[in-house]
Amino acid sequence: MSISSKVREGIAASSWVVNIFEYRSPVVSEEKEVYDFRLGNPKIEPPAKFVEELKKVANNPFPGMHGYSALAGHIQAREAIAQTLSEERGLSFTAHHVIMTSGGAGALNIILKAILNPGEEVIVLAPLYLEYPYYIDNHGGVCCVAETNADFTVNIDTISAKITPRTKAIIINSPNNPTGMIYSGDSLKSIARLLNEKNRQFGKDIFLIYDAAYQDIIYDGNKVPDIFNIYSNTIFAASYSKPLSIPGERIGFAAVHPAMKNSGELMDALTFANRVLGYLSAPVLMQHVVANLQGVCVDRVEYQERRDMLCDALEDFGYSFTRPMGAYYIFPMIPGDDVLFAQGLSQEGILVLPGKSFGRSGYIRIAFCVNKETITNSLPGFKRVIERFM
Amino acid sequence: MSISSKVREGIAASSWVVNIFEYRSPVVSEEKEVYDFRLGNPKIEPPAKFVEELKKVANNPFPGMHGYSALAGHIQAREAIAQTLSEERGLSFTAHHVIMTSGGAGALNIILKAILNPGEEVIVLAPLYLEYPYYIDNHGGVCCVAETNADFTVNIDTISAKITPRTKAIIINSPNNPTGMIYSGDSLKSIARLLNEKNRQFGKDIFLIYDAAYQDIIYDGNKVPDIFNIYSNTIFAASYSKPLSIPGERIGFAAVHPAMKNSGELMDALTFANRVLGYLSAPVLMQHVVANLQGVCVDRVEYQERRDMLCDALEDFGYSFTRPMGAYYIFPMIPGDDVLFAQGLSQEGILVLPGKSFGRSGYIRIAFCVNKETITNSLPGFKRVIERFM
Repeated sequence: MSISSKVREGIAASSWVVNIFEYRSPVVSEEKEVYDFRLGNPKIEPPAKFVEELKKVANNPFPGMHGYSALAGHIQAREAIAQTLSEERGLSFTAHHVIMTSGGAGALNIILKAILNPGEEVIVLAPLYLEYPYYIDNHGGVCCVAETNADFTVNIDTISAKITPRTKAIIINSPNNPTGMIYSGDSLKSIARLLNEKNRQFGKDIFLIYDAAYQDIIYDGNKVPDIFNIYSNTIFAASYSKPLSIPGERIGFAAVHPAMKNSGELMDALTFANRVLGYLSAPVLMQHVVANLQGVCVDRVEYQERRDMLCDALEDFGYSFTRPMGAYYIFPMIPGDDVLFAQGLSQEGILVLPGKSFGRSGYIRIAFCVNKETITNSLPGFKRVIERFM
Repeated sequence: MSISSKVREGIAASSWVVNIFEYRSPVVSEEKEVYDFRLGNPKIEPPAKFVEELKKVANNPFPGMHGYSALAGHIQAREAIAQTLSEERGLSFTAHHVIMTSGGAGALNIILKAILNPGEEVIVLAPLYLEYPYYIDNHGGVCCVAETNADFTVNIDTISAKITPRTKAIIINSPNNPTGMIYSGDSLKSIARLLNEKNRQFGKDIFLIYDAAYQDIIYDGNKVPDIFNIYSNTIFAASYSKPLSIPGERIGFAAVHPAMKNSGELMDALTFANRVLGYLSAPVLMQHVVANLQGVCVDRVEYQERRDMLCDALEDFGYSFTRPMGAYYIFPMIPGDDVLFAQGLSQEGILVLPGKSFGRSGYIRIAFCVNKETITNSLPGFKRVIERFM
């Protein structure tokens, strides 16, 4: 056997992810148009400020600009982020609480590498981002899934039941992929109370890893409660992929709570993990670029319009779902088997992912970060399929 | 204990690496100038063609240019590399043998993730690149060190003695960091013969992972023997960091031998590893840029001049070393303890790394990818210290 057995299993379980990134379609008819709602790869272009900043940096080269940065990233980028965090959160972040990473996925991987001993457990809430189990397994951890309620709100009892003396961390992703849920301040506080209680019981400090990938993509004036003011043992993973619409550039950051015990040691561990996992440091050109783009974000109205186009129509057709509060996914409950339903849609040229892939069968995930005409043209197909299944 | 125990050990063993990347100096006197020869972060600027290509891409944005690429990378970049490899090696590489990576370190990590089962062994030759043991450990492997000869040439007996039924791969780094050695065609052929013999004996296919990070930085008309024409179970890890002098941009690639058995499965495994380790894909802007820069390289004469300035002087002073054939490091044997010798140099404001860090005590590593005046001004210090130790 030439490749790793576990990797072979992983490939078998998720080879379809490769196809999604290549927009490969199972739709065989050449006459049929394809409406691809599978991948969170936005069709909205980056904000003009990003394009201008990139031009400015590229057109004004300076010595060493493409050389290695410090392993934790350029101090300018880290200071800019620390200042933004301090203003937003009312806490005293400095560059020493921030490390630049290769996107949100890079941040999550170095966090897990930094903290996990073999066999330690990480709790995730289902429905869940499908890569978490792989990220946890990369670093010898055990993924423990706690179900949320039927409406995707936090169920504190399922979380509590999963906490053991081996629990090292819980990952919270809000706004959530795939549900679009923003967990309420009360829900997060109940998680914090539970963790604090268990910390006392077990004499430890369970980390809360906050996956903030979609923190800037929010609708209807919703607010994302500030986790830093709720739980002090928080490690924050953020990304410029969504606000700047640059997911291919692999730039993000991790930040540790300024009041965390031993935050210096954790930062050293994150820096070590960034280095030895082969990232070394985040791509340096994008470090220069994002340093001057704090708070810049694509026009959220673009996404909200798409959400509403699709939600209004799906509601009419009889789809059952909660309108997403953030992120760019709708996660409707569908009648019957989700894999069969997704196959039914694919016969209409509509590509979505079955809920099963996110740990909850009976649902589908629709990524609406697509062109508006894709939405418009797909609607008759969405209608026909739900009618067939009802 | 809040962070991973193994990471804590790693930090303790190699915290000095962080300082090197930040050019932090142990020299306390403010009057003393610092000559930093520790980090392979070139002071030679990227070639004009790179600067122009980057401007061209930045100034001509097109839809989706910052979005996710395919997980294995953009087809344009992979095809360009495959064509170059095919021409150079006389073999039929296609895009399906190439995956874009986050630099050479990213390539090595996804290769090791793709192939290693827990406890499988990877042989490395000492002196060695100091990160190999961490990369191997990341993915559950066991690092087995085989010593080269006193002149850093391949010792086939030490390699043979390390091969067991658990051996999964051997890493060959040539031109070598830290020695500057280019292994001869005969040496590589003797390794291939040994591997083929052991493959028959154990009924397996040991991978040869070829770390080609410095393949473009070669002197005196030296040639690097083509590993692809020597051993067919070769996985190649390459980087644009050195030829384009852009180590901070994290762009490189891995390539598998077209005649390898199950090369498709290995490519799937590499793609899976790229995805789940959190790289997803290589930074996309640099994928666009390097696609049009095949064969472009900094002026090697710049490095050769520095090598000769430093080597000529060190020879005069009585340092004992083999003049490097490639890469940008000199690895002199020094009298007495290497850590003490490095400390002696640091009292002169000269920062180098002890050979101990590369698995061979009694040597120091001098990275000469610095400004010429750094070399010129450091020479009296190099002279005084060797005189003190002789």
